[in-house]
Amino acid sequence: MQNLKIDAQRLWETLMETAEIGKTPKGGIKRLTLTDLDRQVRDWFVAKCEEAGCTVTIDEMGNIFALRPGKDNSLPPVAVGSHLDTQPTGGKFDGVLGVLAGLEAIRTLNDAGYETNAPLMVVNWTNEEGSRFAPAMLASGVYAGAFTQEFAERLKDAEGKTVGEELVRIGYRGPEKVGAQRFGAFFELHIEQGPILEAEEKVIGVVTDGQGQRWYDVTVTGRESHAGTTPMPLRRDALVAASRLIVEVNRIAESHAPYGVGTVGVLTIREPSRNVIPGEVSFTVDFRHPDDAVLTAMDAALAQAAAAIGPEEQVEIAISPVWHFPPVAFDTDCVAAVRGATERLGYSHREMVSGAGHDACYVARVAPTSMIFIPCKDGISHNEIEDAEFDHCAAGANVLLHAMLSKANA
Amino acid sequence: MQNLKIDAQRLWETLMETAEIGKTPKGGIKRLTLTDLDRQVRDWFVAKCEEAGCTVTIDEMGNIFALRPGKDNSLPPVAVGSHLDTQPTGGKFDGVLGVLAGLEAIRTLNDAGYETNAPLMVVNWTNEEGSRFAPAMLASGVYAGAFTQEFAERLKDAEGKTVGEELVRIGYRGPEKVGAQRFGAFFELHIEQGPILEAEEKVIGVVTDGQGQRWYDVTVTGRESHAGTTPMPLRRDALVAASRLIVEVNRIAESHAPYGVGTVGVLTIREPSRNVIPGEVSFTVDFRHPDDAVLTAMDAALAQAAAAIGPEEQVEIAISPVWHFPPVAFDTDCVAAVRGATERLGYSHREMVSGAGHDACYVARVAPTSMIFIPCKDGISHNEIEDAEFDHCAAGANVLLHAMLSKANA
Repeated sequence: MQNLKIDAQRLWETLMETAEIGKTPKGGIKRLTLTDLDRQVRDWFVAKCEEAGCTVTIDEMGNIFALRPGKDNSLPPVAVGSHLDTQPTGGKFDGVLGVLAGLEAIRTLNDAGYETNAPLMVVNWTNEEGSRFAPAMLASGVYAGAFTQEFAERLKDAEGKTVGEELVRIGYRGPEKVGAQRFGAFFELHIEQGPILEAEEKVIGVVTDGQGQRWYDVTVTGRESHAGTTPMPLRRDALVAASRLIVEVNRIAESHAPYGVGTVGVLTIREPSRNVIPGEVSFTVDFRHPDDAVLTAMDAALAQAAAAIGPEEQVEIAISPVWHFPPVAFDTDCVAAVRGATERLGYSHREMVSGAGHDACYVARVAPTSMIFIPCKDGISHNEIEDAEFDHCAAGANVLLHAMLSKANA
Repeated sequence: MQNLKIDAQRLWETLMETAEIGKTPKGGIKRLTLTDLDRQVRDWFVAKCEEAGCTVTIDEMGNIFALRPGKDNSLPPVAVGSHLDTQPTGGKFDGVLGVLAGLEAIRTLNDAGYETNAPLMVVNWTNEEGSRFAPAMLASGVYAGAFTQEFAERLKDAEGKTVGEELVRIGYRGPEKVGAQRFGAFFELHIEQGPILEAEEKVIGVVTDGQGQRWYDVTVTGRESHAGTTPMPLRRDALVAASRLIVEVNRIAESHAPYGVGTVGVLTIREPSRNVIPGEVSFTVDFRHPDDAVLTAMDAALAQAAAAIGPEEQVEIAISPVWHFPPVAFDTDCVAAVRGATERLGYSHREMVSGAGHDACYVARVAPTSMIFIPCKDGISHNEIEDAEFDHCAAGANVLLHAMLSKANA
């Protein structure tokens, strides 16, 4: 089986076929979780899995599990998967690739008449995107115990509809208890959503870790005053202090290269006016790193920078932590299975850390897990112009297939 | 006459009496230009000037000129004045003090039975504040030739009413041609609207110059990308670049101490999101200095900083000049008259540059002009809590009186 390859054309055709469900004029997909379009793609997926000989079960959060039996069905299945829902301006690959590559792997094994030792499974997780119902990675989070099922079911969209109601409405509140289905291993194939593989002309990212995240809200309070009549030494300029701190956020991230990142994405001046010195500025900080000890050091460096800048600029700086997602160290054996498959197939590759959150980051809490990345054009995702190459999709699916085989036959 | 003093109590009472016209619950005044409240205070002012023996004329922009004859009425009058209109959340002193102190000077001379050589004049300029009809200092600007009368008359407020219509409606479109009334000298007493006199415990600011201003709109264009998956070296973060430039704006101003000031009052991120690296940031820059050569150097330093930061941060920085108000060097003899009066009266004082625009800044283009500042509490103006001390108002009016006398008898 060492040379078995998936059918690249068939994989691509399923990607394009499902991209019709919720397609947008700009070539993307708008297929929000638990909408009629989500039901339509779920129905398609269930039908194709059953056609491929799988047994489909659905849990109370709408997660779909398609089982292909193995020789020893007492073993927990080796599972792969991702999500079929998209952002409002989603692309054709984010999530969908990881589910359809799993289906393609099953079809390829069927075509080859090959039976694995352990059973195999393809999973579609409900509401990965979190754009209709926040937070993201909701149902994999419930599966892994990060959220209670009650919390998840009561979440409301902008129109006040709940996750629980919408699961029932589209017919995907299944009978299986959430978390009942256990895995021997779990692999998620995904587009990188970043620029590294493309920049380095690598085909496969062997993902070793998921970055931890710390989010903050920062408020700088100085004093509003007249831009013309207030001499520089008497100013308490909240924006100058904020700007210095933003430069420090950047420096702190750079000092933890190559994995450390730091971003200020939102900044608001209270009552801005061209000739008034800003008296209050608030902004967000997003720090990420795969090592929690480094995140703690970044947190301390931010506090230290604020403690230095505050008195110098005669302002008060308040930093409120708003979220902390701990880093994920993926399973060493799963990472080795992906690395081994990539090397045997002869694809160029590098080890990577996932900067974004994925269902695999939660699943890793309860099963041996790792991820496979392929390049995406210009590192762009969550955008209708998101794009990935035919050959890269095929390469990712081949690595997924062989990682599955290596774990299922181990 | 060297020891003549105005009636401090009477001056204060006129300030408090007119403060009833448009008074706000928080102790300020809302008396927008060319409203019924503006007519009411104008009527009060005209009546009091006529009671004081003055001849009142009004020009086509509604500027009010109250003339007290002198011994030699072939001489152009020595004029003083400011404005009776306020900001929507105006205080009781900004503008009003400069007009009422002129009336008080006339009353004081009447009480003393003293006739000056040249005639004296008190002026109320229309729409100094510019909050109902932008730009500010409108009618003194027309008077000095900075704006055409046609431009000014056609300006509309938020409801679409024009300056021309409103002048007619409140009965203050006078018969005199704008600019027909010439001055031998012009003095404007005003609260500082800044913190310097208060911080240094000085009573009088001898204003030598009005700051020049240069305003810019800056747009930084980088690339939006994912805060988690984009490594620091591959970022084109528009906010980091903007922050560095804001720090430079501050540094450039500080490097031209004590008069240079630089302010970023407005900053906007296009489509801000907590976990997206900002792709486009726009902000304003306000540079002020009394020396145009220094403003030119500040302009060059801003361009230089942008030229350095742009490539380093991999962003484009576009700087558009949006306004340039040249510095005003007040008349040396008028400044000397104010300094001399202040010294003779024994008030603590310092020389100052006006950081804000005033009617005197335009009048200086067509007549020998200078200004007198008194402290205001915490440097706050354009605010209902604006405040000035009884003794400081009296001191300013006394300096104004003696500056008038020194020019009218020269």
